[in-house]
Amino acid sequence: MTIADAESTAAQIPTQSTYQHRVADYWNAEENPVNLELGKIDDLYHHHYGIGEVDWSVLDTGPEGAPEPPSRADHRRARITAELHRLEQAQADLLATRLGPLTPEDRVFDAGCGRGGGSVVAHLRHGCFADGVTISGKQADFATEQARKRRIDHKVRYHHRNMLDTGFPTGAYAASWNNESTMYVELELLFAEHARLLRRGGRYVTITGCYNDAYGRASREVSLINAHYICDIHPRSEYFRAMARNRLVPVHVQDLTAAAMPYWDLRKQAEHLVTGIEETFLAAYANGSFQYLLIVADRV
Amino acid sequence: MTIADAESTAAQIPTQSTYQHRVADYWNAEENPVNLELGKIDDLYHHHYGIGEVDWSVLDTGPEGAPEPPSRADHRRARITAELHRLEQAQADLLATRLGPLTPEDRVFDAGCGRGGGSVVAHLRHGCFADGVTISGKQADFATEQARKRRIDHKVRYHHRNMLDTGFPTGAYAASWNNESTMYVELELLFAEHARLLRRGGRYVTITGCYNDAYGRASREVSLINAHYICDIHPRSEYFRAMARNRLVPVHVQDLTAAAMPYWDLRKQAEHLVTGIEETFLAAYANGSFQYLLIVADRV
Amino acid sequence: MTIADAESTAAQIPTQSTYQHRVADYWNAEENPVNLELGKIDDLYHHHYGIGEVDWSVLDTGPEGAPEPPSRADHRRARITAELHRLEQAQADLLATRLGPLTPEDRVFDAGCGRGGGSVVAHLRHGCFADGVTISGKQADFATEQARKRRIDHKVRYHHRNMLDTGFPTGAYAASWNNESTMYVELELLFAEHARLLRRGGRYVTITGCYNDAYGRASREVSLINAHYICDIHPRSEYFRAMARNRLVPVHVQDLTAAAMPYWDLRKQAEHLVTGIEETFLAAYANGSFQYLLIVADRV
Amino acid sequence: MTIADAESTAAQIPTQSTYQHRVADYWNAEENPVNLELGKIDDLYHHHYGIGEVDWSVLDTGPEGAPEPPSRADHRRARITAELHRLEQAQADLLATRLGPLTPEDRVFDAGCGRGGGSVVAHLRHGCFADGVTISGKQADFATEQARKRRIDHKVRYHHRNMLDTGFPTGAYAASWNNESTMYVELELLFAEHARLLRRGGRYVTITGCYNDAYGRASREVSLINAHYICDIHPRSEYFRAMARNRLVPVHVQDLTAAAMPYWDLRKQAEHLVTGIEETFLAAYANGSFQYLLIVADRV
Amino acid sequence: MTIADAESTAAQIPTQSTYQHRVADYWNAEENPVNLELGKIDDLYHHHYGIGEVDWSVLDTGPEGAPEPPSRADHRRARITAELHRLEQAQADLLATRLGPLTPEDRVFDAGCGRGGGSVVAHLRHGCFADGVTISGKQADFATEQARKRRIDHKVRYHHRNMLDTGFPTGAYAASWNNESTMYVELELLFAEHARLLRRGGRYVTITGCYNDAYGRASREVSLINAHYICDIHPRSEYFRAMARNRLVPVHVQDLTAAAMPYWDLRKQAEHLVTGIEETFLAAYANGSFQYLLIVADRV
Amino acid sequence: MTIADAESTAAQIPTQSTYQHRVADYWNAEENPVNLELGKIDDLYHHHYGIGEVDWSVLDTGPEGAPEPPSRADHRRARITAELHRLEQAQADLLATRLGPLTPEDRVFDAGCGRGGGSVVAHLRHGCFADGVTISGKQADFATEQARKRRIDHKVRYHHRNMLDTGFPTGAYAASWNNESTMYVELELLFAEHARLLRRGGRYVTITGCYNDAYGRASREVSLINAHYICDIHPRSEYFRAMARNRLVPVHVQDLTAAAMPYWDLRKQAEHLVTGIEETFLAAYANGSFQYLLIVADRV
Repeated sequence: MTIADAESTAAQIPTQSTYQHRVADYWNAEENPVNLELGKIDDLYHHHYGIGEVDWSVLDTGPEGAPEPPSRADHRRARITAELHRLEQAQADLLATRLGPLTPEDRVFDAGCGRGGGSVVAHLRHGCFADGVTISGKQADFATEQARKRRIDHKVRYHHRNMLDTGFPTGAYAASWNNESTMYVELELLFAEHARLLRRGGRYVTITGCYNDAYGRASREVSLINAHYICDIHPRSEYFRAMARNRLVPVHVQDLTAAAMPYWDLRKQAEHLVTGIEETFLAAYANGSFQYLLIVADRV
Repeated sequence: MTIADAESTAAQIPTQSTYQHRVADYWNAEENPVNLELGKIDDLYHHHYGIGEVDWSVLDTGPEGAPEPPSRADHRRARITAELHRLEQAQADLLATRLGPLTPEDRVFDAGCGRGGGSVVAHLRHGCFADGVTISGKQADFATEQARKRRIDHKVRYHHRNMLDTGFPTGAYAASWNNESTMYVELELLFAEHARLLRRGGRYVTITGCYNDAYGRASREVSLINAHYICDIHPRSEYFRAMARNRLVPVHVQDLTAAAMPYWDLRKQAEHLVTGIEETFLAAYANGSFQYLLIVADRV
Repeated sequence: MTIADAESTAAQIPTQSTYQHRVADYWNAEENPVNLELGKIDDLYHHHYGIGEVDWSVLDTGPEGAPEPPSRADHRRARITAELHRLEQAQADLLATRLGPLTPEDRVFDAGCGRGGGSVVAHLRHGCFADGVTISGKQADFATEQARKRRIDHKVRYHHRNMLDTGFPTGAYAASWNNESTMYVELELLFAEHARLLRRGGRYVTITGCYNDAYGRASREVSLINAHYICDIHPRSEYFRAMARNRLVPVHVQDLTAAAMPYWDLRKQAEHLVTGIEETFLAAYANGSFQYLLIVADRV
Repeated sequence: MTIADAESTAAQIPTQSTYQHRVADYWNAEENPVNLELGKIDDLYHHHYGIGEVDWSVLDTGPEGAPEPPSRADHRRARITAELHRLEQAQADLLATRLGPLTPEDRVFDAGCGRGGGSVVAHLRHGCFADGVTISGKQADFATEQARKRRIDHKVRYHHRNMLDTGFPTGAYAASWNNESTMYVELELLFAEHARLLRRGGRYVTITGCYNDAYGRASREVSLINAHYICDIHPRSEYFRAMARNRLVPVHVQDLTAAAMPYWDLRKQAEHLVTGIEETFLAAYANGSFQYLLIVADRV
Repeated sequence: MTIADAESTAAQIPTQSTYQHRVADYWNAEENPVNLELGKIDDLYHHHYGIGEVDWSVLDTGPEGAPEPPSRADHRRARITAELHRLEQAQADLLATRLGPLTPEDRVFDAGCGRGGGSVVAHLRHGCFADGVTISGKQADFATEQARKRRIDHKVRYHHRNMLDTGFPTGAYAASWNNESTMYVELELLFAEHARLLRRGGRYVTITGCYNDAYGRASREVSLINAHYICDIHPRSEYFRAMARNRLVPVHVQDLTAAAMPYWDLRKQAEHLVTGIEETFLAAYANGSFQYLLIVADRV
Repeated sequence: MTIADAESTAAQIPTQSTYQHRVADYWNAEENPVNLELGKIDDLYHHHYGIGEVDWSVLDTGPEGAPEPPSRADHRRARITAELHRLEQAQADLLATRLGPLTPEDRVFDAGCGRGGGSVVAHLRHGCFADGVTISGKQADFATEQARKRRIDHKVRYHHRNMLDTGFPTGAYAASWNNESTMYVELELLFAEHARLLRRGGRYVTITGCYNDAYGRASREVSLINAHYICDIHPRSEYFRAMARNRLVPVHVQDLTAAAMPYWDLRKQAEHLVTGIEETFLAAYANGSFQYLLIVADRV
């Protein structure tokens, strides 16, 4: 069965839970500047955070004492926007480099693709086919339009589907990933679907926030993040338990928490982009209850 | 080994996680009127909610148009307080009746006893010995003082311990329960400890809020409740899974959601008692994402 | 795949074990008055027991001392028959009310449908489509004929199939149940099939006799019941274990033992209907080794 | 901890279930000639069946046509009794030879020892220490008295204990067995206790009737046997599943069904010894629903 | 789906791991005289060892002192070759007799069929259909050619496929086996495929070398055998664990170690046939770290 | 119970398997220069390999064409020895830095301590107490003597024990590790013991060679390494599966394979130190069948 066949026979997204409808509604309605403004820069729309050191000069407000002229404030805001986008792009790149050696004939699966940036990044780097899946019809349409504009829609496609039940053919993918999208689903079901889709020896990558079982149960900050995004952040242990049950074997695990904090430090000062959750993220990282994790695993 | 021996050798509460320290701090500092004022009525201090129909006459403000005199407002507030306490007491009674036939020689374990009301209720009904455990030293002291005042401290004792690792002797208990205290701990560890402490054929009871997997993952409202109490509400499925692994077999399961809502309807109108979480509870129950559940199980 | 398609491609009942053949033979040959006479009253043929209080006046034999005239004895027997049927119907109704809100477009699955009464009850209450499955070809034919007579055979269909392997389409059912038919099969396989057939959020209900692990292993009485029906009654624990493994989460569990005993008390006095197992049931319930249980669960 | 210490500190048999009390009552009251008369022959009292070919000459009734004189009938009965005992002894010997090479310093555990014959057989063959455990106080006393008479009570001891919870020291046993006593207990708990008691590399042996999952669920005959003995015969699969979970690895499995049938053929003709269950055993073996199995496993 | 259909749609062997390619390369290149010379005798090519007592007269070198004439040496070598083949044939026969009563309409599956001898043996004995699967294209071709020569290719077919993922239809086989081919694959995956292919009540048989967990971990000798064949010998426990998880229930287990040693004793003296691994096998068997095992199981 | 108490009551190493005796014999007899000569340099005796870039100048043989004078050859050999030791020390340091922040009051557990170098490194870095365990009595004595010479034997102790069953007190350790010693034991048992010994939030670290399930089963090279050391290298998946079952949650996983190869490249040219296994390691790493892995996990 080709992917196209699968597409034509899988007419619609399967019956969803109330929760899934609510998540879809959220993302259909979402128009945060932190996602849209950053994406406009180079038409790479991400729905994740960023990593790496910040160039703090973007905050410079000019000579002390002098009022900042409006044009300069605009310029400063533009630089902050660009800097945040650079950090998000760094994260997308880090993930893409971990997908392993891929050929233009290989196919990759982007689970929870949002407005599609990650699939484009992977395609640009490896030349591979990409299938992105999102529960938001609006996101799928947006991403598809982007691919068309770039004239890569013959290789990069987006689908309005449930990532737990894609209908894609078994063993057809060389690599797959979740970039900050695992907290909306049960990991057991998610990894079962990745394991089904990946060929033997295929590569799975996730970057995700998880709560830290060494700290204990979910902290207040973690719950506030859950409430903000209507998500349900998993404990770190759950990732490894669910992978172990689904033939996904880690080969590289990296704690990105320290690398993730500068992004939030900058973002909280970007008054044109803040969503209000910035301090909570910083507090959660700082008290040890929350971690930003990269996991790279092989399908065996 | 007698309980007394266990007491003397288990010098201190075991090393705790940061999370547990934070929960203990919360309860050591907690002085909400909704807990203290209600308890004062008859020295039965509960830390759970209530069930059953409300006597709405407690809200009567007197003849329309006339300003309510202060003494009348006080009276009204007192009636509301009493009514809420009556509903909480009804819940404690419901739980106590489900502990099974117990004799004065039997011993029961109150996991997460708070200021001790539940153990007193069980003792008064069955004449049994009771051991309450709380992670808050202040609560344990308070409850112990209450038992002394009632002159039942030879039968009802409170301990500053971790309910996951009580140090109490194996098989010594005829019944045990959690009344709204399961959301602070891993169920797998909790039920393992209950299963260890209960004798064969012993009875376990819990009343708890759980999130509803038929709805999906935790809703925004559930996350807000988590943030409010620093707790981590489990999905309904997790209770049955963890019981199945720990030889606790349900014999009665009752959805108390409808019976729990009147309490919250009244409480949200009790301006002297509200904590701010009232509307969230009502919304969570109403949208089907959250349930109030009674589970009665046998240790086999 | 429509149900009709499934029907046409699933030519025959799959290869069965010797045990299954023996069970099928039993039910193909079975013509107990307690099933046939009761069903004749209103053409609702049940193969389960009944619940609720008995109207003991049905046993009245007239003025003391006077010999009962034959017509009166017939009348008394008819009243007993009707009363037993009323109790069985009460059980079927209790089950049907627990299937949740259903629409005429919804489809339900009756696993172990016997002569078909339960599917009719569900259809009459909810207007839904129903598929009943029985391992007895004779029962399937009988039930189909009943549906035709009622002119509901376009909505209520019966199939001669193995309930563990129905061949029906995945996720097509809004509700499903076993009314006293779980003791013929492995629960692990049974619940896997229910979980497959039910849509997310679908409802599963069972009323069943189970042996009580709190009592211990199967009692002599339980074994005698097994011998009588060639069945293999499960321990209560096995229901919850197998549900936990198959995404069926209990939401209501009710011990119907006390409600089931009056039926047997009456039946043992119905000399025209007894099968000889009546005293054994009563003894098994009375000594605590056997329980009559209602479990309502959600497919998550 | 020495065994003697364990004895003195394990004052009493642990709290039992109602079922266990009922089993104990059965065996405390049991005085079947088939157990007592056979045992009297050489003071080896067995509670299991026998294997091997029968010497059918024991049934000879003398010249046809002539009435059998009473003394001859007595003689014939005595020969039958002796022949059945010979077959039972053959089974005890088969089991004992599978315990592996043992030294007089080794210790073996006889789980469900009945009146003690098996422990004596093992001791006589290997010179080892033996601890037999039975839930019947009367059997334990009887067996102890037998050991005293033989003057082997310094090496062979019997205990009135629960085989699931012996209180014996961990790793102290070189071998252990159940000879037809597994059907009274949960295998998971039983094998956990054997695994705890056996040293690494120790040997476990069981001879048992099991129901045959290849046939299907428990047949009517199996249920009748359960009812007769108040036992709960396990499916064959359960033995291997529970062993796999408890580090007991089979090394020899033998279907003794054919070897077990002659014993029953003879016994059903021994009118002075029959208990009434003979035909049921023969039918169960013949229809393939029941098997007599030897399993030899290593503790790894 | 018929087998023929399956054949035509399963175009190629599924994507393999590097390991599997290496194993395939090994067997594509393998031309050991011990396999080819023995097979030539009667066109039954086996890739396993032999069991039973050796006729040591085959080693006779004639009168002492006299040099052995070349023709006599040839004759002696031919007799040794024949004797080894006889022992291998004995093993194939032992396995075939354990497949259960089969009819000419039944179908059997030979997993890891090598040059095809086992399927022929099974067919000759039972008249059944046979499907052999090997990862070596060369072996599949060789075996197919043999079947054609015997004119049994309408009943015995060989396939170049992965035994873990055959593409054959579910429940179509009455029996299946691995004769010394389990050490190349994960048992969990292997038994899942056998369980899928076998009908309920079907029979699975394996003869295999396993390492002995009662001895401990894999010994040096076991590792040398692994290195020799590029295989990965499993511990004995793993067979029973994986069977328990896949509804394969042992009914006969036999330790063939003692019966396997004479073959190796003879083979090590057959200078025209040795491969160099002979002494290692003998040492591994002798020190208890390695066992030759027959397991017969039912699909339930 | 203090560690000292544990010591005095745990008289001897528990009954071992034959395999364990053989491993102990190997290490009691082992006197490879690559272990002893390197250790002599600074009395840090390691039994693992090294990581990092090699200073290839150590191979310089002086001006081309000129014969190397003996003293220069000695010098060159000494430099190679020192360079290999430096790489091994780098590995020990890498591991020690991952043990987390430790205080001088903390206690660490070195599982498979060999001649003791790792415990000394950890102590020197953190000032903590250390307990090393080895199955070789000779290694334990040697290591103890080293600690005495350094005058740190009040803080660093070595024990001749089984790392799977240490007898040390529960929850007493802040950190623990295996540096290339996991391949001698079952991971399930090993991690259960680590989980028991570590306090909540404690840290576990391992550096180990594992075989790569993405490649397939154990390659010939892996088997040759097993044969060389009498060990049994686990697949990568097994580490994560066994950790998931034992509350050890990875937080950092690093593939050290590339960093491990230079050590072997140098060692194979060190004719005074080679053991013969050097080329096999290089081949195993190069063909992808074998990996050198660092796993850091938290005890939750």
